[in-house]
Formats: sequence, structure tokens, C-alpha cells
Amino acid sequence: MSLRALVWNENIHETTQEEIRAIYPQGIHGAIAEGLAEQLGEDVEVATATLADPEHGLTEEVLAGTDVLLWWGHIGHDQVHDAVVERVQRHVLGGMGLLVLHSGHFSKIFTRLLGTTCSLAWRNAAEREIVWTTAPGHPIADGIEQPFVIDHQETYGEHFDIPNPDDQVFISSFEGGEVFRSGVTFTRGRGRIFYFSPGDQEYPVYFHPQVRRVLANGVRWAAPVAREHVTPDVTNPARRDWS
Amino acid sequence: MSLRALVWNENIHETTQEEIRAIYPQGIHGAIAEGLAEQLGEDVEVATATLADPEHGLTEEVLAGTDVLLWWGHIGHDQVHDAVVERVQRHVLGGMGLLVLHSGHFSKIFTRLLGTTCSLAWRNAAEREIVWTTAPGHPIADGIEQPFVIDHQETYGEHFDIPNPDDQVFISSFEGGEVFRSGVTFTRGRGRIFYFSPGDQEYPVYFHPQVRRVLANGVRWAAPVAREHVTPDVTNPARRDWS
Amino acid sequence: MSLRALVWNENIHETTQEEIRAIYPQGIHGAIAEGLAEQLGEDVEVATATLADPEHGLTEEVLAGTDVLLWWGHIGHDQVHDAVVERVQRHVLGGMGLLVLHSGHFSKIFTRLLGTTCSLAWRNAAEREIVWTTAPGHPIADGIEQPFVIDHQETYGEHFDIPNPDDQVFISSFEGGEVFRSGVTFTRGRGRIFYFSPGDQEYPVYFHPQVRRVLANGVRWAAPVAREHVTPDVTNPARRDWS
Amino acid sequence: MSLRALVWNENIHETTQEEIRAIYPQGIHGAIAEGLAEQLGEDVEVATATLADPEHGLTEEVLAGTDVLLWWGHIGHDQVHDAVVERVQRHVLGGMGLLVLHSGHFSKIFTRLLGTTCSLAWRNAAEREIVWTTAPGHPIADGIEQPFVIDHQETYGEHFDIPNPDDQVFISSFEGGEVFRSGVTFTRGRGRIFYFSPGDQEYPVYFHPQVRRVLANGVRWAAPVAREHVTPDVTNPARRDWS
Repeated sequence: MSLRALVWNENIHETTQEEIRAIYPQGIHGAIAEGLAEQLGEDVEVATATLADPEHGLTEEVLAGTDVLLWWGHIGHDQVHDAVVERVQRHVLGGMGLLVLHSGHFSKIFTRLLGTTCSLAWRNAAEREIVWTTAPGHPIADGIEQPFVIDHQETYGEHFDIPNPDDQVFISSFEGGEVFRSGVTFTRGRGRIFYFSPGDQEYPVYFHPQVRRVLANGVRWAAPVAREHVTPDVTNPARRDWS
Repeated sequence: MSLRALVWNENIHETTQEEIRAIYPQGIHGAIAEGLAEQLGEDVEVATATLADPEHGLTEEVLAGTDVLLWWGHIGHDQVHDAVVERVQRHVLGGMGLLVLHSGHFSKIFTRLLGTTCSLAWRNAAEREIVWTTAPGHPIADGIEQPFVIDHQETYGEHFDIPNPDDQVFISSFEGGEVFRSGVTFTRGRGRIFYFSPGDQEYPVYFHPQVRRVLANGVRWAAPVAREHVTPDVTNPARRDWS
Repeated sequence: MSLRALVWNENIHETTQEEIRAIYPQGIHGAIAEGLAEQLGEDVEVATATLADPEHGLTEEVLAGTDVLLWWGHIGHDQVHDAVVERVQRHVLGGMGLLVLHSGHFSKIFTRLLGTTCSLAWRNAAEREIVWTTAPGHPIADGIEQPFVIDHQETYGEHFDIPNPDDQVFISSFEGGEVFRSGVTFTRGRGRIFYFSPGDQEYPVYFHPQVRRVLANGVRWAAPVAREHVTPDVTNPARRDWS
Repeated sequence: MSLRALVWNENIHETTQEEIRAIYPQGIHGAIAEGLAEQLGEDVEVATATLADPEHGLTEEVLAGTDVLLWWGHIGHDQVHDAVVERVQRHVLGGMGLLVLHSGHFSKIFTRLLGTTCSLAWRNAAEREIVWTTAPGHPIADGIEQPFVIDHQETYGEHFDIPNPDDQVFISSFEGGEVFRSGVTFTRGRGRIFYFSPGDQEYPVYFHPQVRRVLANGVRWAAPVAREHVTPDVTNPARRDWS
């Protein structure tokens, strides 16, 4: 049975700025979805949803049928309804995988799951990013070149205010000397979370073959073994006789 | 300069149930504060605050002057104002240490910092708890017996829905066969967090010498090196010439 | 292509003690191999090797063709040649998965990979072990009952002298009140390591359906994505022009 | 009572290469010891030892009286006697802190404690290293500038083949675009380990004020709470009556 991936995008830049639409004519979600289909073929069914959809396209039913959710947001974080964020959080805790992308570091869902500000230093100067693998045996790094280069990117720099990640998969350097933990994983409840920073509305990063491979690897890795999402309940069990 | 510890307690059981007041005549906060003073002497200045105080006793000024906050809550979690919770979170991220105690696992501040439900299994049957040290070199375990026994306790059991802790310091077993990760640490922002489960309103656990030693060790461990609380800001630095 | 699992056993108890042979007539390795075949069917090819085999059955060629090695040893740890241990370590660092079982905690390969004594407290009194899942979303816990019970087992207790594990999957309690981190994972190089303590020569633990399920899950989880084992080399790269 | 730090250096470059002696006239150990004394004043007693000393200056008695050992080695790793390495490992597991510096990544003691190859990529081209703090609340980062710059350094690059560290404190970038996890911590047994890569025989890095501050912070952090070193023993406790 194939993986069910859902690519969520606020889809604001692409619909309001012609120069961004020129880079991502199908939207950022369209480019990411295309990349997943290209990399994973019949192993994946890809759907998309955006901020403008009813309930942002993230109804209870849609989430229950999602194995891995990918999240791209930037200037619309505040427009995401808290009730939807709580619903997404519940599904992640119940086992749905989550890939948070680039400026999604400031999304409500990411900061809520991590508990920190998720702040960072940034500069938009079309600098070169070099992405180094720090965990070459990790499934997310499978088939990734050491290093790979993105010619023009927004610069993200430390300190990145996140909790200690479970696995440290990628670290990037930028032309200006900055470093950034660009690929890190977390577990929350039964859900696996992968944050990956390369990707911006002003640069065609989601067409980069290595970035596409990382995202495809990430989707495979974050998919739950059991497909049903099961949120923990507090229980009050009677004392048992174990013999 | 001595450590500034602040013991916060909802103080509801003690003020509404005579049988609890009999166990904790000075309130749970009073017993904990007494224990810290007894263990740390002049190394600590202990203050207390409760839910009924204006702003729950957790004003900006009070928090700015606190090195380590201890948190006991149970039936009053919902009565804690969100604005105060956000303020406490900001101070933890800025460096204030936090000890979350027993039923505080369901407090707003703990679930917000951890991002999970923090649910667990429980049973109130006055069972024996045996507390085992799993990190004997950890500062919080300093001087603690292997194991120590609490004769009567509420039973807490796995699965405890928390993220992977930084350090796993204590694991308890209970008469009924349950196990529980009873002492675990986390880092959020600059703040160090220690969760310790032994302690309940119905049992005189906060008078137990080993429990008092653990809490004193925890306060020492969670205290920030730099006393000012510094919340991260997103920054937009210009490219520098490093030569 | 199916997983290639290799079950290694010192095979001393079974060949020298009639009462152990009565429990494990095909050897402990035979019982484990049977369990893997039963659980994983055509997804796995299972082979076995023992201490008495030339080079302990762990030649360069055999290891190069192994995805996951399972290790059971007890009274023969010292008889394992250091050259073979180094070879196994090299393959683990290169990506081969490793499951270390029960008394294998004191094997040369485990202590060498972990760097600690791996000591623990123990008592052989046919006590009941209750195995609790602490990471219900982990692939190794897939389909495992919360908790499952082993009626008679050797007791292992904390402190278990291991480094902080990557994931804490199972914790056991014993009739005598002991607790033990009975299922923990580590990464070393590209290799994934799972230590699982249930299992002893005197009790038919490797016939227990839940134990068999855990081992099968562990083999799946520890298998490398890329099948070739690649040990890191120190490199001296010239400075590159990234543009 | 003051901390007892012992700076160990193979002291080969300084005694055999005039140009290195010109940089470190008191030896690398001398420069490091001077820095610790300068930073920690009366809080520390600093001693030094070198490869040429009887038993490399690391007798049972010396180690028993050491709170934190600092280790610098490069071309003499193989000359360190295995018996001394085992002794140092035993003391680390028993609680002695250990700071491993720069090319010490390939020392017998470090690879033995970590279990991996500890290999990395390197290039000696007097490149600029920028050291970024990734854990600003960590005691080792106390008072450290974000970032600090070392004008000329040997370049170390990922992949650095180490296990997942406990804490990720510093990451460096180099002029050639490399990144390196330059400050990481581990726990082994009761011992705290800090690896810090800045520092080389060809560059006066151990005179850099920020490097000196990091090493002083590291010594404070790695010091055990209890001064006696206690190596775990396997124990066989009888079942106890806990009531």
C-alpha cells in the first residue's frame, strides 16, 4: 500500500507576487508534490492543500488519511486557525509524520511541538549554501552527495533555538560564514518530525535534485509503521495479578 | 551569591481538604521550601507563591529575580492564566531553571514546553515506590541511595508521553509491577528542566529525606550560569568581513 | 530483496548442559532463527553461526553479506578472537545492523562499541518480568502489547552502565522490585544497534511470541538502507571552488 | 576546595620541531595550563604530564587525584601504552572529567570511549575558523561571543564519525566552506567528556582568549560532583523485602 503524503502550503507569495509565480508556477506545493512523485513513483500518493481551502484543507478526515504531512508557511503563519493547529498536533502525536520546511520554523505547529521560539538569524542575499551530511547512515541521507551545493539561497544561521534533536542529519554553511543545523529530527508522541531548511520562495530550491531526494527520503522515514493515529489517553488501570 | 528558588503551588488541596492540610500544614510549597532550606542552607533563598496570589505570584519582576522555579499543580491547572504561562515559558527559554513536580506533568507550562500530551497511567492505592538511579554520575543523583523507597505513593506508570529526555536520571517501580521514568531532564532554550514524579498531596513524600535531597540537587543543577534571562530574538545580520 | 540476518550464538550451554539442551534443542540460535523466519517469512534469509565455527563463522565474506547480525554470548565472551571482534565492529560502523541479546551486554563487541563497562545487577531466581513499552511509535514496538509478561526470567537491574541511548524503547520491572532498561538503541558509525535483554539459556524466552515479534521488528529496524558496508576514512580534500 | 586539572600532552612537536617550539615555548600543555590558571585562578590547581614521563605521568595515584584530565595528542597516539589507556578509561567511567582536544580525536582513549573511528576530513591551509554557539545556555558556552573567529587554523570537516553527542555546543565553519561539530559532549559511566576541536600545533590557538574561556568552562563543567572515582561493578543482590 502506498504512502499517503500531503503537501501543505500557505500559497500566498505565489498568488500575490508575479516574480514568485514565475519561479513556482504550480506553487511551492506543486513543485514539492512533483518532486515526491518523481522520486517515489508508485510508492506514494501525493495530495496538496493550502491556507485558502476550507479548514485550510486539513479536516479531521483528511488528516486521518495522511501518513506524512509536509508544511510550508512564511507570511501567513498567523492566519492558520488555532483549532486546525491543535488538530494537526493531535495527529502528529498519534503517529502522522511531519516534515517542516524552511520558514516553517516559525509556524504555529512547529513551535507548539517543540516548545521553543525556533528563532534563528537570517539574511536574504542569494548566497551559496553547502549542505553537509553529518549522519551518513541515516535513512534521510540515503543517496545524498557529500556535500551538495545550492547556488543561491536565503542564509539561515545559528543560533537556531530548538530543543536537542534526536538525530542531526545535515549542517549547512553559507558564503557569509554562517552555519545552520539544516536537517534535524524529533519525536513527539508517536510522530516523527523532520525539519529541513533548504527551500525558499525566491529561489528554485524545490527543483534541486538533491533537495527532492532528501524530501522523498524524509517522507519514507517519517511514515508511521502503524497507519492509524493513536493519541495517548491518561488511564487508570486497576492493579493486576500478573501470575 | 545565593540561588533564588521560588516554589509555586496551586495550594487548593491544602486549603479545601482537612485531611490534606493535616499532612501538609504549611502547604506542599511550605514543605518543599523547608526541604530546600534544610538541604542548601545559605546557598539558597527560597520564596513561595500560589495560585491565589495576584498574577499567581508570578509577575515579570518576580520571575526576573528567580533562578529556579518549582511547580506543583493538580486540580487547578486550568485556572492558571495563559498570560502567566507564556511569561513563565519566556523566562524558562531565557535561562530560568524549572522543576516540574508530580501531577505537574499535566500543567500548562510543562505540556507547552514539551509539546506532547504528557499523559501517563495512574492508580492511587498507597503502593510502595522504589526509585532507582540510572545516571549515578549525574549531579541530580549526587548522594542518593541506590535505590530509595517511598512506602506509600500514588502509582504512575508508562507510557509517559514525553519527548526523548536529555538525561534519564531515575526510573521507579511500583508494587503493582508498573515502571515510570520518574526523573528526567530537558533543555528548552537556555532553560534547564527537571521533571520528578515522587510527591503527592495524600502522602508525606516531600518530607522524605531522599526526595528532599533530589529536589535540592535539582535546584542546583537547573540554576543558570548567567543569571539574566535572555530570550532569543530573530536577527538579520549583514554579511560580515571576518578577516 | 530479502533481509539477510545472521544469528550468532556461542552455543556452549546447549552443547555442555543437558538441561539447557532440553530447553533449546536446536540451540538458542536455532530458536531465534526459527522465530525470525516465522515472523518475517520471505522478507528474511536467516543464517546462523557459532563460536566453534572457523573464525567463529564471521569471515569477511560472511559479514559483507549480512544486513543484521544478532549476538548471543555468555560464558564464552573471552573466547571470541579480538580480530573477529574488530572485524564485526568495522562492519557495524560501515552499516551492518547489530542486535545484542541478554548476557551479550558483556560481549567484547558491545562494550567496545559503547565504551562503558555495560555492567548491571542480576539475580537468577525465575522471577516474573513485565516489559513496558516507553516508545509506542517506535518501529521496534510495532504490534507489541502494553505490557507483556515473561513468567520466569533472570532478573536484570539498574544501574545498567551504558551511554545515553538514542531511543528508549522498553523498560522492565521484576518481581523483586528491580527495573531495567530492557530495550535501547544506539548508532555507531552507519550502524544501528538494538540491545534487548529478555532471553536466557535457562528459560524458554526465545519461544515467547512477543519476544519473537520484538526481535523481528529489531531486525527490520536495524537493517541498513544501503546494503554495502562503508567504513569512514580520514580524507584530506583540497579546497574547492564551489561556484 | 579547588578543582584539580591535569593537562596531558604528547609533547613531541614542541621538542622536535623548532618552529613549533617557537609558537609554544612552554609546550602546548604549558599554554593550556597557563590559560586555565588565568581563567580560573584559585578555583583550580593545574598540573601537567607528558608522554615521556614514566607511565606517561598517568599513574593510578595521579589519576585518583585528578578531577578533570585534558588530552592533547597527534603523532604519538600509538606510543601511548594500552595499560595506561585502560587506566584512564576506568577513571573516566568512575567520574573523572575528560577534555579531548583537536587531533586527540584519534587518540586511543577517545576512540575507545566512543566506539567509532572518530575520523574526519582535514586540510592544513591556515584558513579562518568561525566558531558558532549552538547551545547558548550551556555552561561551556558561558561568556563566549557569538561567533568568535580564529584567524588561522587547520580545517576540520564533516563527516565527523562520532556517536550522537549528548549536547551540541559549538559548530564551526571554515573559509573553504566546511562545517565541523567543534564542541560536543558525551557521558560515559559517571564521567563527562567534552571534545573541542580548535587548537593545533602550528597555530597559536591556545593563546586565544575565547578558546581559553571555553577550556576553563569545560573544566568546570566536566568536574565530578563527587570526587572519588567509582567504577561500576556487576552485582548479584539477593531479593529484598522492601516493606
